[in-house]
Amino acid sequence: MSEQDERARRHAERMARKKEVVDRKIAEAQEERGVFLVLTGNGKGKSSSGFGMAARALGHDMQVGIVQFIKGRFATGEEAFFKRQDNVQYHVMGEGYTWETQDRDKDGEAAREAWAHARDMLTDPAIDLVLLDELHIALKYGYLDVDEVVRDLTARPEMQHVITTGRAAPQALIDAADTVTELQVVKHAFQAGIKAQKGIEL
Amino acid sequence: MSEQDERARRHAERMARKKEVVDRKIAEAQEERGVFLVLTGNGKGKSSSGFGMAARALGHDMQVGIVQFIKGRFATGEEAFFKRQDNVQYHVMGEGYTWETQDRDKDGEAAREAWAHARDMLTDPAIDLVLLDELHIALKYGYLDVDEVVRDLTARPEMQHVITTGRAAPQALIDAADTVTELQVVKHAFQAGIKAQKGIEL
Repeated sequence: MSEQDERARRHAERMARKKEVVDRKIAEAQEERGVFLVLTGNGKGKSSSGFGMAARALGHDMQVGIVQFIKGRFATGEEAFFKRQDNVQYHVMGEGYTWETQDRDKDGEAAREAWAHARDMLTDPAIDLVLLDELHIALKYGYLDVDEVVRDLTARPEMQHVITTGRAAPQALIDAADTVTELQVVKHAFQAGIKAQKGIEL
Repeated sequence: MSEQDERARRHAERMARKKEVVDRKIAEAQEERGVFLVLTGNGKGKSSSGFGMAARALGHDMQVGIVQFIKGRFATGEEAFFKRQDNVQYHVMGEGYTWETQDRDKDGEAAREAWAHARDMLTDPAIDLVLLDELHIALKYGYLDVDEVVRDLTARPEMQHVITTGRAAPQALIDAADTVTELQVVKHAFQAGIKAQKGIEL
């Protein structure tokens, strides 16, 4: 047998074993219900990941609800994009915060009003996926009560998915979640003096 | 001064300092050019993050090119969704791989053909953002030459963004990138016996 044939044979064997493992795991994982996913850590891509899953859900003609708990100083591409889609309810918190407004009372009020919108979505079984973008920052600053948030998330319709994003997810949220990913910075263009770029950061 | 007023005052001070730092960093980061972003690690959300950035770019009416280097056994929501959008070129590698086909030669051929599509996008200045989903797996299996890939990525138009996703990004890719995020698993619903869910995994 030539070296190339031998390599191809070993590859086929390895992949056949991998297929067995994958198939078995898929066969074992049979519970069907809505998933609660937390995206946290300092790395770039948490919100984008949530928005990518929203896009994926829309590809399956599912209904999507989005609440953004932070609004930067620029109009964001995701807001422009998802507001034009069918099957999307989109709410952006009224005030840019927190180092922008420097007003704790006003920020807290805006966050609580945004949570009221989130709760409407979390009690509506017609919504298949709810994305609560940058929720963690509202919890970190104590604008929302974490126990109340976990209670509302846990009480949502059985088949509804929910995704929360932001740095520093509180432990109570991590405990309540089904899937948790921590995004870590390996390096960031910003550190090298590159301005935030449309389509990537904005 | 009441305790609440004192808390509000301290918050305003802290946020004013934070605003200073953020404003200074933004003022310093003034280079404008296309960014090369790598999303790697074992955590859930890498591809979604890339697709979320594609959505964000579309929100700015930018042109997007997408090549998927892996195709699972199911039709994916992201494919259905992004194929319906304007301003998107979408190419999916012809063959599902690798533990599915168990055929190294066929997989390599499919990966090289997909790279030819990627290269067309990477030489077209009209495309603002190129997403190369699951590219890293094609490199890991040696279906593509990493030096050739880095050369093509580096030679792309100056203002073009490129995002590559997948586990186990090779070091040469990490070295060439501007921004690298590693997604780590904290926990995963699949481990708890929950089936892959539409809108979340598919």
